[in-house]
Amino acid sequence: MISAGIVGGTGYTGVELLRILSLHPEVEVTKVTSRSDDGKRVDALYPSLRGLCNAVFSIPDVENLADCDVVFFATPNGTAMLMAEQLLARGVKVIDLSADFRLKDAKEWQHWYGMEHACPDLIQEAVYGLPEVNREAIKKTNLLACPGCYPTAVQLGFLPLIENGLIDVQHLIADVKSGVSGAGRKAELATLMSETGESFKAYAVAGHRHLPEIKQGLALAAQQAVGLTFVPHLLPMIRGIHATLYAPLQTESKLAEIQNLFEVRYAQEHFVDVLPLGSHPDTRNVRGSNNCQIALFQPQGENTLVILSVIDNLVKGAAGQAVQNMNLMFGFAENEGLHTVALYP
Amino acid sequence: MISAGIVGGTGYTGVELLRILSLHPEVEVTKVTSRSDDGKRVDALYPSLRGLCNAVFSIPDVENLADCDVVFFATPNGTAMLMAEQLLARGVKVIDLSADFRLKDAKEWQHWYGMEHACPDLIQEAVYGLPEVNREAIKKTNLLACPGCYPTAVQLGFLPLIENGLIDVQHLIADVKSGVSGAGRKAELATLMSETGESFKAYAVAGHRHLPEIKQGLALAAQQAVGLTFVPHLLPMIRGIHATLYAPLQTESKLAEIQNLFEVRYAQEHFVDVLPLGSHPDTRNVRGSNNCQIALFQPQGENTLVILSVIDNLVKGAAGQAVQNMNLMFGFAENEGLHTVALYP
Amino acid sequence: MISAGIVGGTGYTGVELLRILSLHPEVEVTKVTSRSDDGKRVDALYPSLRGLCNAVFSIPDVENLADCDVVFFATPNGTAMLMAEQLLARGVKVIDLSADFRLKDAKEWQHWYGMEHACPDLIQEAVYGLPEVNREAIKKTNLLACPGCYPTAVQLGFLPLIENGLIDVQHLIADVKSGVSGAGRKAELATLMSETGESFKAYAVAGHRHLPEIKQGLALAAQQAVGLTFVPHLLPMIRGIHATLYAPLQTESKLAEIQNLFEVRYAQEHFVDVLPLGSHPDTRNVRGSNNCQIALFQPQGENTLVILSVIDNLVKGAAGQAVQNMNLMFGFAENEGLHTVALYP
Amino acid sequence: MISAGIVGGTGYTGVELLRILSLHPEVEVTKVTSRSDDGKRVDALYPSLRGLCNAVFSIPDVENLADCDVVFFATPNGTAMLMAEQLLARGVKVIDLSADFRLKDAKEWQHWYGMEHACPDLIQEAVYGLPEVNREAIKKTNLLACPGCYPTAVQLGFLPLIENGLIDVQHLIADVKSGVSGAGRKAELATLMSETGESFKAYAVAGHRHLPEIKQGLALAAQQAVGLTFVPHLLPMIRGIHATLYAPLQTESKLAEIQNLFEVRYAQEHFVDVLPLGSHPDTRNVRGSNNCQIALFQPQGENTLVILSVIDNLVKGAAGQAVQNMNLMFGFAENEGLHTVALYP
Repeated sequence: MISAGIVGGTGYTGVELLRILSLHPEVEVTKVTSRSDDGKRVDALYPSLRGLCNAVFSIPDVENLADCDVVFFATPNGTAMLMAEQLLARGVKVIDLSADFRLKDAKEWQHWYGMEHACPDLIQEAVYGLPEVNREAIKKTNLLACPGCYPTAVQLGFLPLIENGLIDVQHLIADVKSGVSGAGRKAELATLMSETGESFKAYAVAGHRHLPEIKQGLALAAQQAVGLTFVPHLLPMIRGIHATLYAPLQTESKLAEIQNLFEVRYAQEHFVDVLPLGSHPDTRNVRGSNNCQIALFQPQGENTLVILSVIDNLVKGAAGQAVQNMNLMFGFAENEGLHTVALYP
Repeated sequence: MISAGIVGGTGYTGVELLRILSLHPEVEVTKVTSRSDDGKRVDALYPSLRGLCNAVFSIPDVENLADCDVVFFATPNGTAMLMAEQLLARGVKVIDLSADFRLKDAKEWQHWYGMEHACPDLIQEAVYGLPEVNREAIKKTNLLACPGCYPTAVQLGFLPLIENGLIDVQHLIADVKSGVSGAGRKAELATLMSETGESFKAYAVAGHRHLPEIKQGLALAAQQAVGLTFVPHLLPMIRGIHATLYAPLQTESKLAEIQNLFEVRYAQEHFVDVLPLGSHPDTRNVRGSNNCQIALFQPQGENTLVILSVIDNLVKGAAGQAVQNMNLMFGFAENEGLHTVALYP
Repeated sequence: MISAGIVGGTGYTGVELLRILSLHPEVEVTKVTSRSDDGKRVDALYPSLRGLCNAVFSIPDVENLADCDVVFFATPNGTAMLMAEQLLARGVKVIDLSADFRLKDAKEWQHWYGMEHACPDLIQEAVYGLPEVNREAIKKTNLLACPGCYPTAVQLGFLPLIENGLIDVQHLIADVKSGVSGAGRKAELATLMSETGESFKAYAVAGHRHLPEIKQGLALAAQQAVGLTFVPHLLPMIRGIHATLYAPLQTESKLAEIQNLFEVRYAQEHFVDVLPLGSHPDTRNVRGSNNCQIALFQPQGENTLVILSVIDNLVKGAAGQAVQNMNLMFGFAENEGLHTVALYP
Repeated sequence: MISAGIVGGTGYTGVELLRILSLHPEVEVTKVTSRSDDGKRVDALYPSLRGLCNAVFSIPDVENLADCDVVFFATPNGTAMLMAEQLLARGVKVIDLSADFRLKDAKEWQHWYGMEHACPDLIQEAVYGLPEVNREAIKKTNLLACPGCYPTAVQLGFLPLIENGLIDVQHLIADVKSGVSGAGRKAELATLMSETGESFKAYAVAGHRHLPEIKQGLALAAQQAVGLTFVPHLLPMIRGIHATLYAPLQTESKLAEIQNLFEVRYAQEHFVDVLPLGSHPDTRNVRGSNNCQIALFQPQGENTLVILSVIDNLVKGAAGQAVQNMNLMFGFAENEGLHTVALYP
């Protein structure tokens, strides 16, 4: 049994960590921090946790957190980088669900996130926590950068193709749609029910922060820079990401062969499921679970391949993947605490 | 480990039983029946179950089901009553999620359900599966009538008051709202997204089939007939029931005393949670879980008590309660397989 | 052609006034105020108005507004009372969509709204703008208090019964459900899509500001104080109010007679529509229109009458009713500019 | 004043025609047909039309419809082609909202629609009713084929680029999302609230019937065959289409120049609105209106142009466009009866 702390326990990724960890047999959540709710019971804010969580919100400081075995940062960008070094020095493993340690290039990070990075040296030490790519490194690291939600769905969809050199990586398109919980638990006009219900729009088409993260991951697989047009959209629903990916085939591969290649690539993965040919994945089928479901199409047999990839943005796209990484870092079974079935309907 | 069969596995209560039982450590689902999908894999219809359920749909007949330890009927009304007797004779325990065995008066059943009852003798044998009222009888029965969704939410809200003689049972009002999954998985105009989304209405105000079931349960507690106005409504959402109950107080009890009485009444119950005074229960806080959350108000200190009671109609209102009953019938821990946290947000 | 100003043009009632007035043949909206958006084009904030509205946001001050024939206040409570007197003195008619002039008792107003009233003398002058009750007074007034959304739906449902002495006014219950647009366009956690979507709850059960307004209106009709339990709920949708009203009959009236009484009472009303017996009104059937649809039930023939009343909270519950009042105040046809058909589906 | 008939008045495009035409000053709807509801008042089925529509459903036959000036077919595919010839022979203008007359190649029609075409000769006579392309031909025709919803949104977004030879028409991508009302008013599992709410998926990725229609329209503009990957998706909402279009630029054009080209191309169009650079169109801003709003992006200045195009699938994508065409065919102002403001929020 290990003890875990959660910094930023009042956001959606924080409460999702609590949902998952409260049933994890190897973890006790001993610290949950929130400046604004210091001293308040966690289950007073989140009645869904009544009976399952006795924690009380406390102030986020290193002393408070130093006796945890692992600390999760479910914070806005720019917070984890201020505390990670000290926690690591105290022997605490750090799992950052924010973007602070995702990009390897500190200047690029500064460009997209609008602030100077507080500990650029640590960036290189951090391991990017996509287990389907970095499993062995994850097992050994003390500082884990948990991938963004869009980057998870997009990379899992493109990777087998890129790793096998099947597509032209200069002309990739990712048309991605997310539920509004991805915007976090913040008082903002833009994510009110009256603003987002019964409506649909693209946003940040000129450039979204997840673009450099996706390109970094795909470039590593391709061993060259990639060209990607990435258009995020906001769905009138709460949970779920659906990535519709378009890639020009540069081989004569048949769809059945590509399907087979995906099935082999992910055969040993607990959480990536390649659907039978002809299937259309539906976000509801992964709602609340850590699964990614993928399907492939080659419309009219032409050379544009269409890959559909769905995840729950709060689970495989955030808290679930963080727990999957934690399991690897502590030597637990990779799917411990993640045996949930999606909530359908 | 026991083996379970599910008759009517293609409806929402059927797939919800599969969701719950696929993680239950003491149960293997060996039979799932569906005439229309005979021979098809269950997870082909429900991709949320991929990797968790190897069952194949089969034809619903007694021979097929007789080697199960327990058979759940997640069928339309009128099906369980045709097969229950034979299954019981073969030593199979029967848990009926439909209405066939809920009403003790066969004539009343015929009046509300529009058909003659096929085995009126069995009705008396059946135990009404509200564990908070009938726990000991449930443990001993082989034929369990699982309560309706509305009746569960309404009875749990009124019972402590009636058992203690605090309210005038001749003038009860239950204004109840349900998500559309309560209407089942049937091709019908009335429950299309375009018909139910972004809209709200009452239905069946002149008389709903759950009215006699609720009155039967409350009358047993009151030891007299009760007067109840029951108005169901359809919410533009999928899961959840919210009962807003109104009762005239006939004592000088203070709200704090009534609150205490509720807390004591449900102190030992795993799945009934009385919220602190001033709370407003929200259906999302029980979504996907087997919990009922209850809160009490006495507006302006006047003599109308307001009780708010929420459940997930597919869990505590159907499949979860069925599993809770099964646990009791087989001597498992009452909450085995039901340790889930509600999906928020 | 008259000129109109809108103070508080960035909220939902403000933009709804713009939607309606932009097609009104007798009105030109010449001023739309917003401190935060001063100088910005209105249609830059609300692209739905492109091509229909050339207005530019300006600062809300009396000089700016004094050359309008009428000024609408679509502001938070406490704003209209600071400017009304000066505008009236300049010969401008004032229509207040906030609560500042709804309650006749300044002390009660202070109790519920938490501030001292700035011009208690004006309260008596103001006419409560429910045309179905006060049409003649509305025609003559220069200061109109537009009713709240809940009070409109509830009063229209109860009034014919009270006016005819058919019900016991000491034991009324109003169980009312509203779309989230009723909470306004404010950056708040509580009305985020992630907080309100796919969920349902009651709120302010201990006491809501619309309670004294409803009681005041019903008491006037009853010529005595009334007893009312009023429970508001939040629907996971944007527009629409559904009031489910319960009243003890104190006569032997048959439902058909009461139905007839409602039909006669509202026969000349443009915007109140009594549905045929057996109908269940649906909020979508009045979405975007100024209509109120009402239906009556007497379940099981017992003495509790159930009245269902639906409106669009932003139209008949706010901006549409304000325009209906304006039409009366300026001698236009009462339904001018309000010939819209509800948006179904 | 002309008289209009609607065949198939019980579907969503039928009731939307009634919504629009009931306020059109030049049209009286005299016939509304429905086999299943023959003899029933239209407003009994659609209470939103109470007070605005006195029509009674009648049987769809030529005699019944022959005294109309125009007949709209809001029917499933395959119906209009059986009656159009006879109605035209009786001097009735025909506007078909189904797909019967959209494709010029009868064999291709048969391939995609799975039946033989009943009157292939008429196909050539029919005018494809996209006014922004075919206005003059529309004015003269008696047989109008109203475009599909997806084809309207996609063509309006691509046309200015193709007409000016700016893009490589062999590599077009249309990632399009539609509300569920596009699936029509049919009792089907797939469009239940419980199946489509809070979820998102692609469908018909292998090939959708609107693909050949879009390619036909784009090819006419390009004067060559085009290559298009078209992926439709189902949104968890009722009304609205959002097309996200990707095209490889084959010139050195700057975004500002392309923006200007769009603005000039659509300057005289009532219903196509090019938003300022940087805008993201939102389906709610055209909900209930006949507008198409378009915005352009060139992410990271690379050579993939992104065009966003939104319409209301039931208005500009069906009934509104049909009325726009009718106005042209009868010499009315093109926007007569279509002066509506989108319903926001």
